[in-house]
Amino acid sequence: MTRLTIRIDFGSQTAFGPGKARLLELIGKTGSIRRAAAAMEMSYRQAWLLVQAVEATFGGAVVETARGGVRGGGARLTVLGQELLARYRAVEAKASQAVRTDVAALAKLAGTQGTQHRRSLRPRKSRARKTARS
Amino acid sequence: MTRLTIRIDFGSQTAFGPGKARLLELIGKTGSIRRAAAAMEMSYRQAWLLVQAVEATFGGAVVETARGGVRGGGARLTVLGQELLARYRAVEAKASQAVRTDVAALAKLAGTQGTQHRRSLRPRKSRARKTARS
Repeated sequence: MTRLTIRIDFGSQTAFGPGKARLLELIGKTGSIRRAAAAMEMSYRQAWLLVQAVEATFGGAVVETARGGVRGGGARLTVLGQELLARYRAVEAKASQAVRTDVAALAKLAGTQGTQHRRSLRPRKSRARKTARS
Repeated sequence: MTRLTIRIDFGSQTAFGPGKARLLELIGKTGSIRRAAAAMEMSYRQAWLLVQAVEATFGGAVVETARGGVRGGGARLTVLGQELLARYRAVEAKASQAVRTDVAALAKLAGTQGTQHRRSLRPRKSRARKTARS
C-alpha cells in the first residue's frame, strides 16, 4: 500500500507534519492530552511539548485544557487547532490526488506485491537493507 | 519561507523521501558516492546503505560504480535511478502546486514574518518550545 507523508516547514525551526496532526486529532477525539499521548506511545511531557511547539508556530492556543473536575480535567481543540488540522488534512488529500499518476508509476517500479519478492533479487545483502531507511 | 517535504511509503519497510532523493541527486552531480555522502555530512557507509535500501525497494541498481581508475572509480545514476529521482521531483512539484492555497492559509496563520514575533506572545515558555519539533 503506497502512502504519502507530508511535512510543512514554516521557516527554519517550525514544522507541521503527520506526528503533530495525529496528536491534535487524538486530543480532539479522546478529550485528553494524556490519552492522546498514550495512544501514540509517547510521554505526556513529549505530547505537551509538541502542543507547545504548534502553539509557538501558530501564535495562539490550539488546545484548551480544563483543570480539576471528576477526572482531573480534559482537553479539546480550539478553533485554531481545528482549522489547522483540517487544513493539513486538506493538504494531504489534495497532494495525494495531484500526484497519484506519478506515485502509481513509482509503486509499479517498486513492485508493491511484497518486499520478500524484491529481496530475493539480492539475497546476500538483506541485513544491510533492513537497517537503512529514510 | 514555507516548504513542503514529501515522503512516499511503499509497503511498511520501504520509504523514499527527501534524504534519498538528495543523495541520488548528489551522486549524479558529483559522480561519487563518497563526495555525495560528504556533501550531506554522512558517512560513506550510511550513504551506501541508503543506496542499497533504494535498490532493494525498486528491485534494481540505481547507481553504477566503476572500481579503479585515476581517482579510484566513480559513480553515476542508472536509468532507473534517474527515473526515480525525476518522478520524485515531479511529485514534489505537482503536490506543492496543488496545495498552494491551503499552505498559504497555514503560512498566514503561522505569520511567517519571523519566529521572534510569535515567541513574544508567550515569553515564559520559550525554552520548552525550542526543544519540541516534529
